[in-house]
Amino acid sequence: MTTVRLLSDDELSSEARAVFDEIRAARGTDYVNDFWRALAHDPVGLRRTWESLKQVMAPGALDPFVKELLYVAVSIAHGCDYCIHTHTAAARAKGMSEAQYFELLAVVGMAAETNRLVAALGVEVDERYRLPG
Amino acid sequence: MTTVRLLSDDELSSEARAVFDEIRAARGTDYVNDFWRALAHDPVGLRRTWESLKQVMAPGALDPFVKELLYVAVSIAHGCDYCIHTHTAAARAKGMSEAQYFELLAVVGMAAETNRLVAALGVEVDERYRLPG
Amino acid sequence: MTTVRLLSDDELSSEARAVFDEIRAARGTDYVNDFWRALAHDPVGLRRTWESLKQVMAPGALDPFVKELLYVAVSIAHGCDYCIHTHTAAARAKGMSEAQYFELLAVVGMAAETNRLVAALGVEVDERYRLPG
Amino acid sequence: MTTVRLLSDDELSSEARAVFDEIRAARGTDYVNDFWRALAHDPVGLRRTWESLKQVMAPGALDPFVKELLYVAVSIAHGCDYCIHTHTAAARAKGMSEAQYFELLAVVGMAAETNRLVAALGVEVDERYRLPG
Amino acid sequence: MTTVRLLSDDELSSEARAVFDEIRAARGTDYVNDFWRALAHDPVGLRRTWESLKQVMAPGALDPFVKELLYVAVSIAHGCDYCIHTHTAAARAKGMSEAQYFELLAVVGMAAETNRLVAALGVEVDERYRLPG
Amino acid sequence: MTTVRLLSDDELSSEARAVFDEIRAARGTDYVNDFWRALAHDPVGLRRTWESLKQVMAPGALDPFVKELLYVAVSIAHGCDYCIHTHTAAARAKGMSEAQYFELLAVVGMAAETNRLVAALGVEVDERYRLPG
Repeated sequence: MTTVRLLSDDELSSEARAVFDEIRAARGTDYVNDFWRALAHDPVGLRRTWESLKQVMAPGALDPFVKELLYVAVSIAHGCDYCIHTHTAAARAKGMSEAQYFELLAVVGMAAETNRLVAALGVEVDERYRLPG
Repeated sequence: MTTVRLLSDDELSSEARAVFDEIRAARGTDYVNDFWRALAHDPVGLRRTWESLKQVMAPGALDPFVKELLYVAVSIAHGCDYCIHTHTAAARAKGMSEAQYFELLAVVGMAAETNRLVAALGVEVDERYRLPG
Repeated sequence: MTTVRLLSDDELSSEARAVFDEIRAARGTDYVNDFWRALAHDPVGLRRTWESLKQVMAPGALDPFVKELLYVAVSIAHGCDYCIHTHTAAARAKGMSEAQYFELLAVVGMAAETNRLVAALGVEVDERYRLPG
Repeated sequence: MTTVRLLSDDELSSEARAVFDEIRAARGTDYVNDFWRALAHDPVGLRRTWESLKQVMAPGALDPFVKELLYVAVSIAHGCDYCIHTHTAAARAKGMSEAQYFELLAVVGMAAETNRLVAALGVEVDERYRLPG
Repeated sequence: MTTVRLLSDDELSSEARAVFDEIRAARGTDYVNDFWRALAHDPVGLRRTWESLKQVMAPGALDPFVKELLYVAVSIAHGCDYCIHTHTAAARAKGMSEAQYFELLAVVGMAAETNRLVAALGVEVDERYRLPG
Repeated sequence: MTTVRLLSDDELSSEARAVFDEIRAARGTDYVNDFWRALAHDPVGLRRTWESLKQVMAPGALDPFVKELLYVAVSIAHGCDYCIHTHTAAARAKGMSEAQYFELLAVVGMAAETNRLVAALGVEVDERYRLPG
């Protein structure tokens, strides 16, 4: 249940509508998901978030598929149910197989386990993993 | 500062020594990092953790480089300083360029931001991202 | 879904009833929200939590409106859905406008993003931000 | 200890230098803190982060002092030591008294406690805190 | 809502079925809970997780009841609703009284509060709590 | 490094001194650890925190040793280095053996792993773990 009403297309300010147009064009679909309909109450934040997301997730030195996997992994670590579902769906749309999905989960689980063990034990970074100087 | 003494090779039980031998063989280096030297007080836990890690991080449907990036991402989300440094070093050893590193960071930061926005707004998963049935 | 039954007024111990009376008096409403009805199984914990909350959220050097915003921000960072909804409602009842709400969200999101970037990069506190001595 | 070298002014790309110039102008000081010197390896990310931060922290419906307090609170919840120190210093520079500081801490601590109690008890949002419809 | 279909007994691979048989035997019940039905898509991960869990939760220097309480506490801190409910149920099945349950909650809440206060204040470990040498 | 100066005994207000006297008496030692010396700037918060801690950690339906283990587990999950070290030391002072310590760690690590797997898979609580009604 949201803390603000989800805005329908009819209720968008012109600034928000412009962002929705860009989202639709970039994604090649008329569907705009509910996160953006909640954020649309704040057109400035909507634009900033969309621009940043577009820039960050664009093809670069890492390809968008790997970026999507990273997004899923971080969303799991933060326990964001909405983000987990939407980005898992996005990763599948980009070709993630079930085998890849379960390997992703295994890495996330393993990292969670050792992250906590290391914190508990208070291990300090080995000399050789430190930057020189 | 650790909560237990780091064990030197001389102080290892035979069970712990056997795991260290496997770590050395698998990694092709005599160096065993301090996490394992802290965990070596518990040979059963040491073996379980090493066996799991080896299985999870092995080449599979995802390649080890991508798995390493995922490990770094989760370690950042959990704020594990030791894990961040050692797995960032491991990712670099597997070929991660600085451009790739900063793209990884950008994705992690972006996911952190939107994870919190979504939680704040209480957005529920859109019908289309739900499994049928 | 709760792990314990929510207690109705009829089921309260006399110690729990006394706390409920104080909550009603302090808030000027007969409504006592479900968090307290779950906690009421433990009258000692109920009293301690209520006394602490009353003291912490009272007007002081910071006004209760700012305290309520801080409560919302922390609840978002911890991903507590119930707390997010009830304290967002409380902040609105204390006058939070939608513009203020979305600025709060933007700060929380920005902090989440930079918190993770800083952790990833392992930046240490600049000399000038350290206490002298 | 950082995962990348902190860049001195001499080592900045022209794009990074331009951002540093803006930071200096906006803050009215020649000092640029180490977070930016780590991020400067990625001029695109540096610019995006700075632009977003500047927009988010600008005076608006909430004043910059309250925004700074929110930043500190979120950084505490995320356990980011660098962010805690630098934003606590920034809040003091904006006038935060020790009394205000300890009230902020008390709210953060109280929220942390009740956030976990609520999660444990699985309390669902009371009907009256839900949006109509 | 799950990201994968829950597998019924008829849909299990032979490897997954073997693990389900072990779970049933170890727990003395035909009921296998939904976590395992989701994980059963990945028989290798299913076996690894079950073997590790069985080893970790077995009677040892700590008795299984205390281990179950610890599991609940960590699940609360991580905000895992499913884990909270199933392990709270498991702790009750192992004899946890309501008084013990609320004391557990009080400790978790108190730790959460002081964990955040300590992070905020940046307190460093007192000399006397450090390992010698 | 702390955000406030640690107060020496000479610098305590009379209210803070009274709390220190109680801490010394309750613990049977003249040593007061640095957390309290940081918090002592806020005598009201100092008293509230001490009173709550004393009540929560007292012998009850759970014994103080188990409570201490729970405190350590939560502190690990929250990544609070100071709390991990001081409460691990306290648990050892209450008789925790190394075997118990490593079993505690194993449970925390295992819970962390499965907490994240469950979040990733979005498993909902099985009917039988729900409260009736």
